[in-house]
Amino acid sequence: MENPILVISSRVHYPESQHRGAIAVVNAAGKVVYSVGDIETPIFPRSASKLFQVLPLIESGAVDAYHLGQEEIALACGSHNGEDTHVQIGEKWLQKINKNENILACGTHRPMGKKAVQELIKKHQSPTPLHNACSGKHLGFITTALHRGEDPQEYISRQHPTQKRVEHTLSEITNFETSTAPHAIDGCEIPVIAIPLYNLAWGMANLADPKSLPYVRQKAIHLVIDSLKNHPNLIAGDGAFDTELIRATEGRIIAKMGASGTYVAFSSEHALGIALKIDDGNIKAAEIAMIHILEELGLIDTERSETLGHEKIIFTYNSKPVGKIHAAPKKRQF
Amino acid sequence: MENPILVISSRVHYPESQHRGAIAVVNAAGKVVYSVGDIETPIFPRSASKLFQVLPLIESGAVDAYHLGQEEIALACGSHNGEDTHVQIGEKWLQKINKNENILACGTHRPMGKKAVQELIKKHQSPTPLHNACSGKHLGFITTALHRGEDPQEYISRQHPTQKRVEHTLSEITNFETSTAPHAIDGCEIPVIAIPLYNLAWGMANLADPKSLPYVRQKAIHLVIDSLKNHPNLIAGDGAFDTELIRATEGRIIAKMGASGTYVAFSSEHALGIALKIDDGNIKAAEIAMIHILEELGLIDTERSETLGHEKIIFTYNSKPVGKIHAAPKKRQF
Repeated sequence: MENPILVISSRVHYPESQHRGAIAVVNAAGKVVYSVGDIETPIFPRSASKLFQVLPLIESGAVDAYHLGQEEIALACGSHNGEDTHVQIGEKWLQKINKNENILACGTHRPMGKKAVQELIKKHQSPTPLHNACSGKHLGFITTALHRGEDPQEYISRQHPTQKRVEHTLSEITNFETSTAPHAIDGCEIPVIAIPLYNLAWGMANLADPKSLPYVRQKAIHLVIDSLKNHPNLIAGDGAFDTELIRATEGRIIAKMGASGTYVAFSSEHALGIALKIDDGNIKAAEIAMIHILEELGLIDTERSETLGHEKIIFTYNSKPVGKIHAAPKKRQF
Repeated sequence: MENPILVISSRVHYPESQHRGAIAVVNAAGKVVYSVGDIETPIFPRSASKLFQVLPLIESGAVDAYHLGQEEIALACGSHNGEDTHVQIGEKWLQKINKNENILACGTHRPMGKKAVQELIKKHQSPTPLHNACSGKHLGFITTALHRGEDPQEYISRQHPTQKRVEHTLSEITNFETSTAPHAIDGCEIPVIAIPLYNLAWGMANLADPKSLPYVRQKAIHLVIDSLKNHPNLIAGDGAFDTELIRATEGRIIAKMGASGTYVAFSSEHALGIALKIDDGNIKAAEIAMIHILEELGLIDTERSETLGHEKIIFTYNSKPVGKIHAAPKKRQF
């Protein structure tokens, strides 16, 4: 089954490229409220599962034990730009757990944010593991392991108690049996398990409407939401779509990108979870599909969606507009 | 009609994203030797038409009149990385036509090459129009206009004699009536006209096997081929797929990328032209589809195709291989 075209890049009025994909909108009872395309085949959520992966850090009591606050929690949810703010929170966190950056197994890469890259080049500095977009998530894993008295060595292995806890949480909150699902290794070395969009959206719905979950999990979810509402720049960075979406809606919509064209979001107000994936992995198309579905469902008003870029204008190098990337007209395919 | 999946990005053994597209392989008689997907619907070739657009520069006599050589011709065919070599050839070219860079209407952008970007940042310099990937093509347009005694002002307009000449050449060599085709503006401000993959491949076949073309055009084509054989780094830059493909085959295959997932190539030895387009515009997928079709047709040996990256390994940030981008198994779709 081919997924429908969700996003089109048009040059003047003629389509130049197109992006297929699927979307699931689900409530906490697991009811599909809206769907497009194949939401049953497992896909790799990549960083779109970070809002689930952070829960054991809080539920284990590690946050309290190590005096971590909303900043650390927001960073652990994030795929951050590697700007000074992000690195500094990571540095303080390492001090709180009395470790240095060598404990991080996430590896090192050019910061995701252009500003951060330019800053490093200007200062003639190389990136460290704290510039890695996933450093917060990794610090969360390590802190939980330390708090539970586990050897943090090999914390990235699927057999390590930390990853087992994370996988158990993932399975519980998405109502999906992960043990038999396709799995692989993420860019930052941790296990990545394929989960259907339906279940990812269901998991997000559980964040939106956690009242039937155990009290400890409800409390953890509220803390995650508050952390992201108060520190939207830590989930990514200024200008990033998830950061700006949280800001523009004052936290009424919480969203998180994942590599390879995945995006998840939830609305507590409307008790809905959303998960989408662009087949070809294009992130810009995923953002446009997300803003469009939020608009279509009435979860965001047109003014806000326009500000957030529900269409992306294509310019020449002289800044003349010559096209746009936009949501495909419904059901129209070519 | 949906185009088939040509390229898959797999994480370990599980597909993570996929790229659909179409391919035309045509000979100079216009016979389709091989095709996949829709090769009839016009698509924007973008920079994949540069090998056609350069012909009037040579055929008009401007190359001889202004003492231009193979370097300038290769640069005019290219979407270059904006490295010092590229910029210096542009500077000398401007001197030869007694103009300065303000005459270039292509606009300014961050150089396409990472090395070039880093060099600029380190030198605290901003890019000029000569760093624009299309500067050579624009210099070609301007030089032809000057040689023909035309006012170079507005040389980017579709009504300017220069663009009319280019469009006429495009129409002739691809055997496609451009006047009624969808059209738009390219990123560098010039008109871009949609042409079916079939006709783009036919045009490339005419470069591969020009014996039935007028003598002036044959001579121009041989000069283009020699220029690219001798200066493959000017069509893009070290490490770029088209540059490395020309190098690895010692010019037996000449290839040119276009933005939005287009790639064209030709083999003089086998008298074949190839044009392909990835629906979602992904350039890396276009490269892999190109190397795969060359391999499939026996135009390149396995050793060379492996060196050129007929599969792209996906690594973690610690350089552990965890997946690959590869050609889809034939006819297999999921």
